[in-house]
Amino acid sequence: MRRIAIRPATVLHPHPVLLIGTFGSDGKPNLMTASWGGICCSDPPCVAVSLREATLTYHNILGAGAFTVGVPSRKHVQVADYVGIVSGRSHDKFPETGLTPCKSEKVNAPLAAELPFSLECRLLQHHKLGLHTMFIGEIVGIQADEEVLGPMGLPDIEKTRAILWGGLGNNHYFAVGEKLSEAFSAGMSLRGNPRT
Amino acid sequence: MRRIAIRPATVLHPHPVLLIGTFGSDGKPNLMTASWGGICCSDPPCVAVSLREATLTYHNILGAGAFTVGVPSRKHVQVADYVGIVSGRSHDKFPETGLTPCKSEKVNAPLAAELPFSLECRLLQHHKLGLHTMFIGEIVGIQADEEVLGPMGLPDIEKTRAILWGGLGNNHYFAVGEKLSEAFSAGMSLRGNPRT
Repeated sequence: MRRIAIRPATVLHPHPVLLIGTFGSDGKPNLMTASWGGICCSDPPCVAVSLREATLTYHNILGAGAFTVGVPSRKHVQVADYVGIVSGRSHDKFPETGLTPCKSEKVNAPLAAELPFSLECRLLQHHKLGLHTMFIGEIVGIQADEEVLGPMGLPDIEKTRAILWGGLGNNHYFAVGEKLSEAFSAGMSLRGNPRT
Repeated sequence: MRRIAIRPATVLHPHPVLLIGTFGSDGKPNLMTASWGGICCSDPPCVAVSLREATLTYHNILGAGAFTVGVPSRKHVQVADYVGIVSGRSHDKFPETGLTPCKSEKVNAPLAAELPFSLECRLLQHHKLGLHTMFIGEIVGIQADEEVLGPMGLPDIEKTRAILWGGLGNNHYFAVGEKLSEAFSAGMSLRGNPRT
C-alpha cells in the first residue's frame, strides 16, 4: 500500500439509508431520504439526522417537534432513491411511491407501514453545523414488522435485508453481505498476543 | 407482515465500525472502536462520534481537540473488535494489534497506517446527550491507501472492503454485499408513476 493525503470529503463506509417521516403544518405526511445520520446515544436512546435548511423535512421537524426514521429493505431501493430526489413541496410522495402513511403511536409524525421498522422520535436538540443542521431525537418507540425480529426481540439485519449507500466514492446502493464474526468476541484472542 | 410496537432501542441498519485515534496527554496513541457515528455535515465536511465519558478516548479528544476516524477493512475485523473491548488505560493497543501509529499531518492525533483510510478531524463542538457525548469534528484531511481510491479520487467501498456491525439485534460483523443500483438515479422512473 502507498498512503497518500487526499482532499477533505464526506466519505465514510458504510452510510445508512434512512427514510425520515414528518408531518407538515397542514398535516400532509412527507418522506425524505437521508444518509447523514445514525444512533448517537444509548441512554436515553437517541438518533441523529442531519438535514439542509432547504428541505421541507427540516421545517416539518421544527414545526412538529418529532420525526420517524425508517429503515428500508432491499425491495425499497427504488422508492428510497425517489423520495431523496424530489421535494415534498411539489410532490405527494406517499401515493407516488405506493407507501402507506400511518401516524406514529408515540409522536406527531408519520411512518411508512411497509418498511421493516421505523424509530419514533421526539426532537430533543438541534445544532446548526454549516450547510447541515443536526436533529437529535429521542427514540420513544419502534414500529416493526414482526417477521424481521430476531431472538433478541429486536430488528435483525439478516431479516430486514437493509441496504446501504456506498457514498461519494461509489454512488450506488449495496446489500448487506456475508456474516463475518461475532462482535465483542472476535477480538478476545488478541488478549494472549505475544506482542502484549 | 404484522406491524407491532416494540420497546425503544438503539437499532438502525447498518452501523459503521469506526476506529477512533487519539493521543493522551502523555503522548501515548490510542485506538478505540465506535459505532455511534457518521457524517453529519457536507460543508464544512464534518463527522460525529458519540462516546461515553468512561472511555479514555473521551478525555483524549477534549485534551487534544482532535481525533481521527479510521475505517477498517474485512481483514481488520479481529483488530477492530479487540480495540473496542479493552481500555487504553491498561493496554497499549497499537503494539498489541500490530497496527502502526502515524501522526496525522493535519491534526494532533494518530492514525493506524494499515487502514484503508482515516479522516483527520479537528474538534468543533461537543454535546452531552446522556450516557454518550457527541463529538463533532471537521474533516480537515484524509489519509488513504492509494489502492482503495476509485474514479472520483475518493475511497471506493468496493475497494476498501469495509465492514459493518449488525447491531443489538444481531451482534456480528458483516461484509458489504452486492451492488444493487445507482443512487440519485434508480428512483427517477417513479416520476412517471400513474399514481402521481
